[in-house]
Amino acid sequence: MPESPIRKLAPFADLAKEKGHKVYHLNIGQPDIKSPEIAINAIKNIQLDIIEYGPSAGYESYRKKLAQFYTNQNVNVNTEDILITTGGSEALLFALGSIMDPEDELIIPEPFYANYSAFAAESAAKVVPVNSGFETGFELPSIADFEKLITPKSKAILICNPNNPTGYLYSESEILQLGELAKKHDLFLIADEVYREFIYGDDIHYSVMNLKGVEQNVIMIDSVSKRYSMCGARIGCMVTKNKDVIAAAMKFAQARLCPPTIAQIACEAAIDTPKSYFDEVISEYRDRRDTLVSELNKIEGVKVSTPKAAFYCIAELPVDNTDDFAQWLLESYDLNGETVMVAPAGGFYSTPGMGLNQVRIAYVLKKEDLIRAVAVLKEAIPAYNGRRKAL
Amino acid sequence: MPESPIRKLAPFADLAKEKGHKVYHLNIGQPDIKSPEIAINAIKNIQLDIIEYGPSAGYESYRKKLAQFYTNQNVNVNTEDILITTGGSEALLFALGSIMDPEDELIIPEPFYANYSAFAAESAAKVVPVNSGFETGFELPSIADFEKLITPKSKAILICNPNNPTGYLYSESEILQLGELAKKHDLFLIADEVYREFIYGDDIHYSVMNLKGVEQNVIMIDSVSKRYSMCGARIGCMVTKNKDVIAAAMKFAQARLCPPTIAQIACEAAIDTPKSYFDEVISEYRDRRDTLVSELNKIEGVKVSTPKAAFYCIAELPVDNTDDFAQWLLESYDLNGETVMVAPAGGFYSTPGMGLNQVRIAYVLKKEDLIRAVAVLKEAIPAYNGRRKAL
Repeated sequence: MPESPIRKLAPFADLAKEKGHKVYHLNIGQPDIKSPEIAINAIKNIQLDIIEYGPSAGYESYRKKLAQFYTNQNVNVNTEDILITTGGSEALLFALGSIMDPEDELIIPEPFYANYSAFAAESAAKVVPVNSGFETGFELPSIADFEKLITPKSKAILICNPNNPTGYLYSESEILQLGELAKKHDLFLIADEVYREFIYGDDIHYSVMNLKGVEQNVIMIDSVSKRYSMCGARIGCMVTKNKDVIAAAMKFAQARLCPPTIAQIACEAAIDTPKSYFDEVISEYRDRRDTLVSELNKIEGVKVSTPKAAFYCIAELPVDNTDDFAQWLLESYDLNGETVMVAPAGGFYSTPGMGLNQVRIAYVLKKEDLIRAVAVLKEAIPAYNGRRKAL
Repeated sequence: MPESPIRKLAPFADLAKEKGHKVYHLNIGQPDIKSPEIAINAIKNIQLDIIEYGPSAGYESYRKKLAQFYTNQNVNVNTEDILITTGGSEALLFALGSIMDPEDELIIPEPFYANYSAFAAESAAKVVPVNSGFETGFELPSIADFEKLITPKSKAILICNPNNPTGYLYSESEILQLGELAKKHDLFLIADEVYREFIYGDDIHYSVMNLKGVEQNVIMIDSVSKRYSMCGARIGCMVTKNKDVIAAAMKFAQARLCPPTIAQIACEAAIDTPKSYFDEVISEYRDRRDTLVSELNKIEGVKVSTPKAAFYCIAELPVDNTDDFAQWLLESYDLNGETVMVAPAGGFYSTPGMGLNQVRIAYVLKKEDLIRAVAVLKEAIPAYNGRRKAL
């Protein structure tokens, strides 16, 4: 099992905090946005005497309402296509467990969400990365690049759209091309769409569920974690029109009995969250993104492209090794008692040696904090490079 | 992946309910006992604005309180020995994932909790059953029987104590013998102790955590599901003194980010559940057990031994095939609009052909319902056998 590159820095963050330093967390996807009141109130008003097992597929009432939610977004989903899971993590584990045999190959554009490697390992599947390039803003690699990697062992392509860690939003045309590719080679196409709501321009999110003629190959992963700032609920879902995949995933679902029941009640209520909540959230993130990118661009030697969606970006820093730099920031650096935690991007690549001068930055802090955090980074970079030269 | 033998009957139960039949659920371990008020109130009173990620190992405050809870029960556990998991299911998945390589062998006394097979399959481990015998009341198989099965591929022994599905409580002497065996062959000894509170006589539960000289080989699995009738919380824990196992399990824990946060808040509060709650619960279950066993003994041809603990028993029925019988009860039978759902015991054995005339009965219904349910069973058995002869 590969170790989570994000969470492994946690002990150093604890050390920094023990020293009394304020740590700006640019490393994690934990939004500071409030969860919808309607969801919190549903928890406060629960009318349960017994916190009992629910159905393995999730509450029927929740699945129905969720299907309606997708339909309202013009995403083609029915109740019976949905399995409620313990977070998007479990949805992906069930999907991979259901379709991958040991040694089967899973093609993923890199950089990619680091835990995909762990989930692939848990299914004994092999990750085959296809590079999506910092220079081209992380757009979809060419279909020719994918085809070079397809072997008899290839079973699926996995994308994250909008993308964590790059903030890239795949276009309709890119998704259509992937659909064609999946059809041509009879591969599964899995799309992790947990950031679907977080789009800052006029672009439209195109769900894999809307691809025609390849419905049996498509699996969508979703989660409430980001949509409602309810990461701790641990409620997600696996969605597919493929009945065999649903049936296989149900075996995993039944073995673990059911997803958390209290959280499902909150999630069912959250579906009625008013549009104004999202409008505010999106506007807030757009501001944060613009602030972050403009502040980062003021640092000499830093390269970053403006992300279109989600709440991450990949930045290139003028340092040799961001693994070492990220640890040093926590262990040995502070600017007037403040420091910064970033996620070294090496962990988001499966090709060894890639991304060593990159970090992933999550803009889930309020603007003032983002400005302070980047100011710390600006001072820290020359200090770090100077320290290295002095050794 | 093997299918859950308990949950696969669910569609037939739905059918029976659609026909307007009342179904007595003797098949599942969902208690009708209320969850502690203190836990429900903790949920109603949550003071969270954001349902955010918690630590991958679970909340520190909860782990501390849980360690104290075990210490108060004279079970030797410290905070750092505990990983909070999404149910006991995930605790066992993490334990197996951490210690088993593909093809490694896991020895389990059979009959055993059916989902153990699924968890072993998810870790690509091989289940090696050792028969514990209906005739001897499901006591621990002899150490010689275990030793016959030990090969270079043997990695662990897994027991459930108190036992689901048999209701057997392993004695201190049996646990000491298992400890010796684990030490002699350097095997892990995993004990699923989720029913530790449910003991109806003067017997004392002896935890594997109290074994001396073999601490590095021992892993305990626990859960709040049964203790507080909070099956839907999906909170359990993996406990071990072995730091390497904790470190390996943490990789799985970090990949899935964290256990559900709202439920953890309820569980932390539940630790202060007053003793009177358990006294009432145990007394209620003791009555139910006595009622169930005495009613079952009134049916000609039924054999059952009085379970000491948990809330299950294995009964032998005078029918050829309980898989078929259980389905028939739901699909084709009713007594004045009532029928019964039982768990065919074949699914609790991994040796093919074993347990085909046995069922597992959970006594989680109130006494009047248990009496009605067994009355239905009493009429159903000759009707089923008569139907078979008439074919």
